[in-house]
Amino acid sequence: MSEQANNPTALAEAKRASAENFTGVAFATLAVPPGNPTDCVVGNVTFEPGARNNWHSHPAGQILIVTNGAGYYQEKGQPARLLRPGDAVSIAPGVVHWHGATATTLFTHYAINPNASQGIADWDEPVTDEEYQAAHA
Amino acid sequence: MSEQANNPTALAEAKRASAENFTGVAFATLAVPPGNPTDCVVGNVTFEPGARNNWHSHPAGQILIVTNGAGYYQEKGQPARLLRPGDAVSIAPGVVHWHGATATTLFTHYAINPNASQGIADWDEPVTDEEYQAAHA
Repeated sequence: MSEQANNPTALAEAKRASAENFTGVAFATLAVPPGNPTDCVVGNVTFEPGARNNWHSHPAGQILIVTNGAGYYQEKGQPARLLRPGDAVSIAPGVVHWHGATATTLFTHYAINPNASQGIADWDEPVTDEEYQAAHA
Repeated sequence: MSEQANNPTALAEAKRASAENFTGVAFATLAVPPGNPTDCVVGNVTFEPGARNNWHSHPAGQILIVTNGAGYYQEKGQPARLLRPGDAVSIAPGVVHWHGATATTLFTHYAINPNASQGIADWDEPVTDEEYQAAHA
């Protein structure tokens, strides 16, 4: 059996997301780590109610696939979108956006980063409470 | 709201996988279609018990993430690996392999194809009954 078979993805460590780039409590797990031969990195992120990442963008774009709970995805200048399990979002390279749980629900999604060697994310300012509340409107 | 919000991924059509490339009954749904700005295509595939795809490879590699049931993933010349929900597999460009349900279980996984414009898959021969049974050994 290959080495991968003895390291089921379920046992990958869940790391607390940095307060530098996140408001509230969130955990990220690497489902497919950097350096793998597809150059595509896949993380799994769970946000507690009220938690969200900062405004940010991805040099090579990103795909989100929601697996649990409910949360928001918002691009700069656009209305927030409520996402549910099964929903998939394709985020174009360089588009500034944020995502996170609603104020009352958990939110889990896969985060798929193709061509990760171009860089994973460029981080910006936190989502203010006003911006966050507006998403719920 | 953007156009995407009115077309939840859950409503994407499930198409029967072609008998040209699959043995048994399988369905594929496009979660993230070709032509999106990440150039990464994401499908969701469900195999009935006994169903599997042919030997094949991907020009730009592929990532599998299992969401339901149990199935096998096997690279040419390697033992088959039993995959369970949550498992992720990174498949290098050009590596010949197959995947499918076990003889007694359903199997569902996301299939993530980065740099899809390089081509999605190069198909080969069906997995013989002998090869398939050997996976269960």
